Amino acid sequence: MGRFLFHPMPQVGEVIALSSEETHHLRVQRIPLRTPVLIGDGRGGLYRGVLLERRDEHALVFIEEKVENTVPSFSLSVWQGFLRSPARMDWMIEKLVEIGVTEIGFFPAERSVKERVSKDRIARWEKIIVSACKQSGRTWFPTVRVFASWEDFLRDLSEKRQRVFLADASCGEQLLDVLRKGEVEDSIALIVGPEGDFSEREKEALSKIGVYPVSFGEKILRSETAALFGASLLVAFMEGNHAGRRENPRV
Amino acid sequence: MGRFLFHPMPQVGEVIALSSEETHHLRVQRIPLRTPVLIGDGRGGLYRGVLLERRDEHALVFIEEKVENTVPSFSLSVWQGFLRSPARMDWMIEKLVEIGVTEIGFFPAERSVKERVSKDRIARWEKIIVSACKQSGRTWFPTVRVFASWEDFLRDLSEKRQRVFLADASCGEQLLDVLRKGEVEDSIALIVGPEGDFSEREKEALSKIGVYPVSFGEKILRSETAALFGASLLVAFMEGNHAGRRENPRV
Repeated sequence: MGRFLFHPMPQVGEVIALSSEETHHLRVQRIPLRTPVLIGDGRGGLYRGVLLERRDEHALVFIEEKVENTVPSFSLSVWQGFLRSPARMDWMIEKLVEIGVTEIGFFPAERSVKERVSKDRIARWEKIIVSACKQSGRTWFPTVRVFASWEDFLRDLSEKRQRVFLADASCGEQLLDVLRKGEVEDSIALIVGPEGDFSEREKEALSKIGVYPVSFGEKILRSETAALFGASLLVAFMEGNHAGRRENPRV
Repeated sequence: MGRFLFHPMPQVGEVIALSSEETHHLRVQRIPLRTPVLIGDGRGGLYRGVLLERRDEHALVFIEEKVENTVPSFSLSVWQGFLRSPARMDWMIEKLVEIGVTEIGFFPAERSVKERVSKDRIARWEKIIVSACKQSGRTWFPTVRVFASWEDFLRDLSEKRQRVFLADASCGEQLLDVLRKGEVEDSIALIVGPEGDFSEREKEALSKIGVYPVSFGEKILRSETAALFGASLLVAFMEGNHAGRRENPRV
């Protein structure tokens, strides 16, 4: 049935109009009329539909049946200080989504060169997420959050009950050793500082809310590389907890 | 002393002329005359020198002393089928070098859209490698190999004595499980197919020379993401074998 298409709210028995982008993908894939297609709603729902009509801008699909409803088997958030380069943030989002991170956020830190992103950028990130999810067969689309201030970020973090790892080059304990030692939780967050790392004041604030500093080895990684390296290890171990239970089947 | 500069063959007691690129970096870092600088030779050697003269094109440095000679504590090669997008290959090289891969190669596969790269691209990759090594404090620069044919690649692979993992989405055994089970070798290669994966014929050929197929989990990853995900796990475990022996100190 090929890769799935995206529509936010398909309803069984109704005809939906796909967005111009999804219509474009459909055209590129040369899907013939009356062909079954898969429609994902981005929240784990997957529907079988039939392509009724291919208009220039919006193809019409009749939704026949809900075929799947999945939720991620774990929750992994990556919180990253704003990076100088928007292209590096774009890249980081694509890769984190592909490997299976469920939530990504950016916050302003003392040493962040950049302190905000444009609305256009956020719209672009949404497209990157949809594309990466379709690429990797994920029916649950991660969210991207952009915090207005360090205080907002800290408040949000302290309200959650999850293990929070802090990427800290000055810390001796390796993330791998921590993961190997004990049981790996189902809900974890990873915090990575901006290019110039966190200030001492920020590190103290993070320490107060109980974050767990971990090192990623001998190397000095760029911020976005540290995020991907750490997330790769975390995903591998968190998925390992759920071997056998495939809650995110390939479509 | 700041980040180090690169010169292929510094000799103690001699004056070397830095390349125009390194001279540019030196200018950007505003390093004053008569200041000590670190010069890496890309093969693990690190030298202390003194900046004598800043000409427009080539700064002159007097090499005082060899201060370090390191070799990587493990060897990790990543062999990747040619990708369609040169930008994705650029990105992949930068990230693999940063995390600590020691050798990277590209080969043409049956389903590779691209079958060769330009000389300009290879020159560009060399610059990316130097820059990523300096960024992450690595004094041993990985090499990039470009195989002219699949047969060349296969011959080279079969001549080496090392554990070879093959990224294979159809295989049940997870890389993490394999790494957790036994002792991790000091010399490992990881093979990743092109966008359309390997053909059955290619998989058979690889199977004959004893490669070990491993899965990277529930997800379907882009080729370059699979390379980075797998290499992250491998580096973490291979470095874990050498904890305590820091052969690649930060400079």
